[in-house]
Amino acid sequence: MICFNCDYTEGAHPAIIDLLTKTNFEQTVGYGEDEYCEKAREFIKKECGRDDVYVQFLVGGTQANLTVISSALRPHQGAMAAKTGHINVHESGAIEATGHKVIALDCGPDGKLSAESVENCVNAHWNDETHEHQVQPKLVYISDSTENGAVYTRAELKALSDVCKKYGLYLYLDGARLGYAFMSPKNDVTLADLCEFCDAFYIGGTKVGAMMGEAVVITNPALKEDFRYLIKQKGGMFAKGRLLGIQFYALFENGLYWQVSKHAIDEAFKIANALKGAGVRFLAEPESNQIFPILKDSVIAKINEKYLTAFWSKEGEDESAIRICTSWATRSENSDKLIEDILALL
Amino acid sequence: MICFNCDYTEGAHPAIIDLLTKTNFEQTVGYGEDEYCEKAREFIKKECGRDDVYVQFLVGGTQANLTVISSALRPHQGAMAAKTGHINVHESGAIEATGHKVIALDCGPDGKLSAESVENCVNAHWNDETHEHQVQPKLVYISDSTENGAVYTRAELKALSDVCKKYGLYLYLDGARLGYAFMSPKNDVTLADLCEFCDAFYIGGTKVGAMMGEAVVITNPALKEDFRYLIKQKGGMFAKGRLLGIQFYALFENGLYWQVSKHAIDEAFKIANALKGAGVRFLAEPESNQIFPILKDSVIAKINEKYLTAFWSKEGEDESAIRICTSWATRSENSDKLIEDILALL
Amino acid sequence: MICFNCDYTEGAHPAIIDLLTKTNFEQTVGYGEDEYCEKAREFIKKECGRDDVYVQFLVGGTQANLTVISSALRPHQGAMAAKTGHINVHESGAIEATGHKVIALDCGPDGKLSAESVENCVNAHWNDETHEHQVQPKLVYISDSTENGAVYTRAELKALSDVCKKYGLYLYLDGARLGYAFMSPKNDVTLADLCEFCDAFYIGGTKVGAMMGEAVVITNPALKEDFRYLIKQKGGMFAKGRLLGIQFYALFENGLYWQVSKHAIDEAFKIANALKGAGVRFLAEPESNQIFPILKDSVIAKINEKYLTAFWSKEGEDESAIRICTSWATRSENSDKLIEDILALL
Amino acid sequence: MICFNCDYTEGAHPAIIDLLTKTNFEQTVGYGEDEYCEKAREFIKKECGRDDVYVQFLVGGTQANLTVISSALRPHQGAMAAKTGHINVHESGAIEATGHKVIALDCGPDGKLSAESVENCVNAHWNDETHEHQVQPKLVYISDSTENGAVYTRAELKALSDVCKKYGLYLYLDGARLGYAFMSPKNDVTLADLCEFCDAFYIGGTKVGAMMGEAVVITNPALKEDFRYLIKQKGGMFAKGRLLGIQFYALFENGLYWQVSKHAIDEAFKIANALKGAGVRFLAEPESNQIFPILKDSVIAKINEKYLTAFWSKEGEDESAIRICTSWATRSENSDKLIEDILALL
Repeated sequence: MICFNCDYTEGAHPAIIDLLTKTNFEQTVGYGEDEYCEKAREFIKKECGRDDVYVQFLVGGTQANLTVISSALRPHQGAMAAKTGHINVHESGAIEATGHKVIALDCGPDGKLSAESVENCVNAHWNDETHEHQVQPKLVYISDSTENGAVYTRAELKALSDVCKKYGLYLYLDGARLGYAFMSPKNDVTLADLCEFCDAFYIGGTKVGAMMGEAVVITNPALKEDFRYLIKQKGGMFAKGRLLGIQFYALFENGLYWQVSKHAIDEAFKIANALKGAGVRFLAEPESNQIFPILKDSVIAKINEKYLTAFWSKEGEDESAIRICTSWATRSENSDKLIEDILALL
Repeated sequence: MICFNCDYTEGAHPAIIDLLTKTNFEQTVGYGEDEYCEKAREFIKKECGRDDVYVQFLVGGTQANLTVISSALRPHQGAMAAKTGHINVHESGAIEATGHKVIALDCGPDGKLSAESVENCVNAHWNDETHEHQVQPKLVYISDSTENGAVYTRAELKALSDVCKKYGLYLYLDGARLGYAFMSPKNDVTLADLCEFCDAFYIGGTKVGAMMGEAVVITNPALKEDFRYLIKQKGGMFAKGRLLGIQFYALFENGLYWQVSKHAIDEAFKIANALKGAGVRFLAEPESNQIFPILKDSVIAKINEKYLTAFWSKEGEDESAIRICTSWATRSENSDKLIEDILALL
Repeated sequence: MICFNCDYTEGAHPAIIDLLTKTNFEQTVGYGEDEYCEKAREFIKKECGRDDVYVQFLVGGTQANLTVISSALRPHQGAMAAKTGHINVHESGAIEATGHKVIALDCGPDGKLSAESVENCVNAHWNDETHEHQVQPKLVYISDSTENGAVYTRAELKALSDVCKKYGLYLYLDGARLGYAFMSPKNDVTLADLCEFCDAFYIGGTKVGAMMGEAVVITNPALKEDFRYLIKQKGGMFAKGRLLGIQFYALFENGLYWQVSKHAIDEAFKIANALKGAGVRFLAEPESNQIFPILKDSVIAKINEKYLTAFWSKEGEDESAIRICTSWATRSENSDKLIEDILALL
Repeated sequence: MICFNCDYTEGAHPAIIDLLTKTNFEQTVGYGEDEYCEKAREFIKKECGRDDVYVQFLVGGTQANLTVISSALRPHQGAMAAKTGHINVHESGAIEATGHKVIALDCGPDGKLSAESVENCVNAHWNDETHEHQVQPKLVYISDSTENGAVYTRAELKALSDVCKKYGLYLYLDGARLGYAFMSPKNDVTLADLCEFCDAFYIGGTKVGAMMGEAVVITNPALKEDFRYLIKQKGGMFAKGRLLGIQFYALFENGLYWQVSKHAIDEAFKIANALKGAGVRFLAEPESNQIFPILKDSVIAKINEKYLTAFWSKEGEDESAIRICTSWATRSENSDKLIEDILALL
């Protein structure tokens, strides 16, 4: 079976494996305070064009989300998220387990949160005479790209940021697939923009070439304080912290992160365009490495004999949307075969 | 600087690096349900001599402790631990952050918890008329080897287990350094014993040859239920779960885990015996890969120009105990040099 | 100003004040283990027609909800509730603060949860291959009467209970206004029914004649265990526990609870029928002590010069729904005046 | 049986009962925002000699402690308390249930925490290179009088306050028995002092004449923010908040609080002096309304046929310390009888 079901089916980019191998017997201090982590932090700061951001490496996405959010909020405050947001539906209640409500807001099929819906939520709260009886909305959680493959524009992010600043909210961006978002033809956002718009965000490694690990970037000084206690408390601080540093070192020393992301986007659009050319409709206009063609169930069944894809949603009597996901590791010949096989079935 | 300060200064055993490299481009399902994890589970079950134990791989020790303990306890229940126990002093309140009190019990300088002190704690609780106003002691947390390098005997573990069974308590063993404990000349415990005595324990990878990862073994059926939800919720479930499976595969396919542990013990005892031969006293009789010689502060200062060791405790006017720690990665020639240099300073 | 805005504007029924006064200098043991609590428990068991239920008195509704729910659930489990359910919107995240997600389900304007929507939620969970990445739905929270004044029928409750039994869920009923629900002409439910259908419920005192206090009734043996630890831990155990016992003693010795509830219902329906007679529409058919007439904003403004009512929702250009709430303490002459004044304004 | 076992065996001072009765049918707004609460706040501010303190009424002591502490701390911070402190031993893990470690410090038999032990704890934390792996000590919890009946001097409180200011810690005082402490002949502290020394404290009602309720006084502006959300979330906000306001109104309108406290102290010292005169030793010098005579077990057995006292500790072969507790409600004739009966048994 060839996997197009998700973007974490392989190990890590060979450059990472090489650097891990090469440095394997070096002795370093633990807990992320070694030179590789330090260097990796500098690379990332440089990409951000900012020297004053605070960078920490965490083991995974759920860990990053729960650590940042529980560190930022007081007990009565909640995190607004799109209904389909990862923290709302696919983290087993990780945020609630730290004591905070995820305030789920309606969103379109793209999974994006609008500045307007945030503002409405905040106003509804503060206009209530007994607002003390409600969770106080304090943080906005978004993902770029979203769980549904959509990419935020700079204007959308700025609007969200403006609302957050207006109401004293934190804006936090989950960048599990940030590389794929930024390499999207639709993207007009930079890391410098994220630093300006967000109080914190993370650059995802797990799904973008690393074995595991996410680089949390904190720009708001208030959120930096004592953050490492939280990492330790939540179980996200590796004894051998260098393992994360080394990976981000390899990814950001020479722009490898962007190259592998670009590859995934190229493969995704190749597939998308070929299918479009054959008249296939999509659940949403393809924007990143996750695309959602709508196909006859019989076609899907045939495809699934040879490929792993992810069922997404029933779309009519005998049709469904599936998720096809490319990654840094997708082989071009496999994409070509997939295209060929699908086209033959239409 | 040559590191003897802890057992996590290098990467991973080359066999692990090799297997990670070799399998790097295989496509597997995520979240620990791949074949490598499956195989590694079977190897561990075989070592335990038990088919009915439940094995899950977690990313680190704090993560393992907080996940197991918060999964096992109801909100009003607490975990008894030696005062010096890792969960009581070095996990940034990870257990409390899940809502549970760590009930710290007095212990000797070896860091072991006795059956008697557990029984006294439980009796004190239930004999109190208003026991509902106190945290209910429900789980016993121990480490083998302990934070102070001591190794439990089978008789001690059985006594603890008997008390636990008598009072309906869970016995949970933190095996961050289990390999080093088991290879100690003092050890008479087996994995089968642990399965019999404990409700859950973990076999430490991070400090014993792996990059990261711990294998949690659950024997009590009540503690198996829905355990994977907890792993996910607490942020300890790797998308690329195979990374952990592959490592434990390499460690347990052919007994590598025990070989590398034995190496660390041999090095530790070589150093300990050489120092003893020169009249050096120890804070406690060396039992595992952590040894605690008492040396003049001036000697320690000299040693520390060339070696990293860990200061442990002031022991009189001008003497201190330091921790010297060997590991799977300790080079024999470095131990030899250390011995030579210390002896020259005495 | 005459209050029709809520049902907790006065102190307590005089019979309660009397009994508190009369018993004031008696010396009793604390924490709810005195004779008055004991007697009150017996009265309630008798009304339930069950000797095997477990009754504890808590200080308030939020306290009751968070104590029962956090006692019943494991960390990865959540409580399903109607979107408009009290725990979802008006308890400042009390449930989440104990670590659990409130899984908000769509509901009609009556605020009732249907068996069908519960079943759909449970099926959606278990049919997801990665259900471990989602909060496990385990408890159903409903209120009778609902936050919107609606009353459950026996058939509806039975259907909910059947679904819960089918899927191993707990059914928990918030009875803050249970007296008013049971005295509704629409009601066909008894306390014995609740004991049969629910795993736990509470009989509300605060809004039904008591100063404060709710009687939690637990029928499921699994939920009784160690419940008093939870009451203490969450801060809901009065040192002078008899204060609650005495009040429920007074309310249930001779059916006072039902009499005062009936009075509130009579007053509510008197108002509702008078308004209906004058052609006033209601947001929902009046069923209990909360009624929601839709009036011109100009009329509402006039009413609010003399009466406190609660704004509920905008219903068109120049109309709104308001909540008029009667209680055990509502004076008939005030209801009459309110009717007269409204009719004069129409 | 005549109760000397604790200070919460009766209802409330008649002045409170009277005011509750008199105001019973007044209609007020809920949740502690009525005029009685407002007036009571003013009385308390006046007694404090400060207009800038923030006063909120909570239902009980555990509730007050957990609400203040969880509101003040970030997730990685802990509360230092004497080993015997109420939050460490008699609140069923209420503080841990909000996520925070109680850092138990050694103390003498008086149950007082010294400035020195706080400073040592803080230094030990910050001097540890890996302090991020430990809970950060951030708040100091003390009780006046202590659980063992001791009363803090102004100098002791000032020393604690100075240490707290030096290290940026919060000082929080549990005043469940503040009235009894302040009426002790040993006391030289005023409410104005508490306002100066503490960031927050509470004036206990439950044990000092009220039915229930504690007045939390917050002086540190940082701790005032959004405090009412926390009250609501933790279940401590009464719908009929006036019930608490009315009681503190009665207690503080004309100094009733101090009068009833003085009465308890007079009775306690009458008993203590009579026993001392007969040669009875005490576990600690009597300082407040709790006194701890050491008596032969045979004498205690006889006393307990007629009086309820609390066993405290075994003090030798055939002797024990018991706690004799007076209160606002202790009848002089009962104290006289107790003295007579004990003296007759010696």
